Amino acid sequence: MSETLVRFGIIGCAEIARKLSRAIALAPNATITAIGSRSLEKASRFASANNFPPEAKIYGSYEAVLDDPDVDAVYVPLPTSLHARWAVLAAQKKKHLLLEKPVALSAAEFDTIIEACESNGVQFMDGTMWMHHPRTAKMKEFLSDEQRFGQLKSMHSCFTFCADADFLKNDIRVKPDLDVHGALGDAGWYCIRSILWATDYKLPKAVMALQGTVLNEAGVILSCGASLYWEDGKVATFHCSFLSNLTMDITSIGTKGTLHAHDFVIPYQEKEASFSTGTESAFDELVTKWIQQPSKHTITTDLPQEALMVREFARLVEAIKAKELKPENKWPTISRKTQLVLDAVKASIERGYERVEVGN
Amino acid sequence: MSETLVRFGIIGCAEIARKLSRAIALAPNATITAIGSRSLEKASRFASANNFPPEAKIYGSYEAVLDDPDVDAVYVPLPTSLHARWAVLAAQKKKHLLLEKPVALSAAEFDTIIEACESNGVQFMDGTMWMHHPRTAKMKEFLSDEQRFGQLKSMHSCFTFCADADFLKNDIRVKPDLDVHGALGDAGWYCIRSILWATDYKLPKAVMALQGTVLNEAGVILSCGASLYWEDGKVATFHCSFLSNLTMDITSIGTKGTLHAHDFVIPYQEKEASFSTGTESAFDELVTKWIQQPSKHTITTDLPQEALMVREFARLVEAIKAKELKPENKWPTISRKTQLVLDAVKASIERGYERVEVGN
Repeated sequence: MSETLVRFGIIGCAEIARKLSRAIALAPNATITAIGSRSLEKASRFASANNFPPEAKIYGSYEAVLDDPDVDAVYVPLPTSLHARWAVLAAQKKKHLLLEKPVALSAAEFDTIIEACESNGVQFMDGTMWMHHPRTAKMKEFLSDEQRFGQLKSMHSCFTFCADADFLKNDIRVKPDLDVHGALGDAGWYCIRSILWATDYKLPKAVMALQGTVLNEAGVILSCGASLYWEDGKVATFHCSFLSNLTMDITSIGTKGTLHAHDFVIPYQEKEASFSTGTESAFDELVTKWIQQPSKHTITTDLPQEALMVREFARLVEAIKAKELKPENKWPTISRKTQLVLDAVKASIERGYERVEVGN
Repeated sequence: MSETLVRFGIIGCAEIARKLSRAIALAPNATITAIGSRSLEKASRFASANNFPPEAKIYGSYEAVLDDPDVDAVYVPLPTSLHARWAVLAAQKKKHLLLEKPVALSAAEFDTIIEACESNGVQFMDGTMWMHHPRTAKMKEFLSDEQRFGQLKSMHSCFTFCADADFLKNDIRVKPDLDVHGALGDAGWYCIRSILWATDYKLPKAVMALQGTVLNEAGVILSCGASLYWEDGKVATFHCSFLSNLTMDITSIGTKGTLHAHDFVIPYQEKEASFSTGTESAFDELVTKWIQQPSKHTITTDLPQEALMVREFARLVEAIKAKELKPENKWPTISRKTQLVLDAVKASIERGYERVEVGN
């Protein structure tokens, strides 16, 4: 095994950790070194079910992974309510941190994670995979193009999926003591991120949740939406839900152009992904058809986006280890902004759909 | 000329009347008999520029068209503030009525038009052309399918276009004395109609305009949006604008399926139009790709949708003339509902984005 591979430990055996295990295996600069679960047997089963390298260490606790000197970085797919405790501890143990979203119960709580990462010089990144797809960079090129897109005026994003009865009863994402933000923290996170991404991470001035939030008996959000407002007049809306068919759209409308994607969170296929753009779209003279129609763009990738995320994270870790570079501040910054907007939407729901200023 | 052709008169030489003149010529059961403008010269120029049949009569007033016994039906593309006066007069003169949208300044005003049509036994239809495209019926089939779509949970619709400087200064749609509803009455009408269409014309209980409305100096809406709420928990949002790139989407998300169309108001091409549907869309086991992807459906048509609208309107007129059938009530009913929602959105904007109950 090359010395330059970044060695990952995983704490917890969540479903999503299966996808990440494969991603770590696919990333050329990363390897899995250890997994820890509260149950040694569960960790062992997870390792063999997910083709861990034979030398990977199996632990019966999370602490043991954090104490292992052969672990450079940890991937934390634990329920949100456990993030602060384990992320801070990981940072204190000098482990670089790949943390699932939503990153914390609140931005204030997330600040304790950032502080721990900063004071221990470790890299932070959240698990928002689509950020790392080459399609995302291509879409951003379009949005940044004054000639093809102009200024963003409005945006709509949605992410819904139809959870089955078992999910709605047992998944951690419907449990108030585990993932209290429910669909907002899970699916809504992506919508909020996509809107911030499109606005160059300029925070909205205020948000207002849309009426009609659906809560489960325990008060966890199963479906909700919000509108977001910027000082310069930009507006955005999003809708997220566990209660309708799998759908994930971004629609960004600028003064000169329009962007559409229908699989922005998880592309339809692993090796390629598409989006469509229109510029100065126009009708014919009699307004009976379009003379400038949108065009489709397809971007290929050798690695799936989750492996690209691991590769980028490992690259930053390697730069810190080998070249003593500082951690890249971009990633915790956009995590924090996403959480700030999420907090404001949650507050708006709790206050009866009041307009809520976004914190900073 | 066949005796069974429905004979159309047009009052006013609006740009949109050019498209309708062609549509009347294309419709197999309709013909243009007369045009009237306040200026005889303008009417004459319009008739020759738009290839009117040589026998078509040219009048220097609207009244003359309404008084012509050879006119069965009138198409009224006048500014909204003139609708009530001329639509009521047309009905009183026993002319069937194809009226541009928005149908009136308010639902209350529209009721005077409906009453005039009913008491004079004339057919009413508004000029919402996309209702008549065969794609629309196919999309509706999907939305009505319990197996493929399930119950509608959320919907988003937008219609924006980038008006040029001349439009923003001189078009009737930015003049408070002509089309006071601006972008809401023009582009927003289609969004509202699409949402009502998807909900089987079940009126929302309440609406709330989205903040960030853009008004021109005269107070006419250039850009706005709203959220709509139904008793059963359905939610919808829309955005309409004169200030961004031409974009027109409908996204309907149900418990089992999803519908997308990106050219719902005016199809990209005259002879065919597409939409996409997904049913029980799902990821693979590791959530790295979709195993059930949406599929695209393309519907062809011999006649453009505006000619299909004229044909349907003329068919109803012919049935009344020849068979003494009653006017079809569906069309004024959905016009009225669209106007009711439009009125509520306008009221919400005027009341500082309050929640406004939808009238009935």
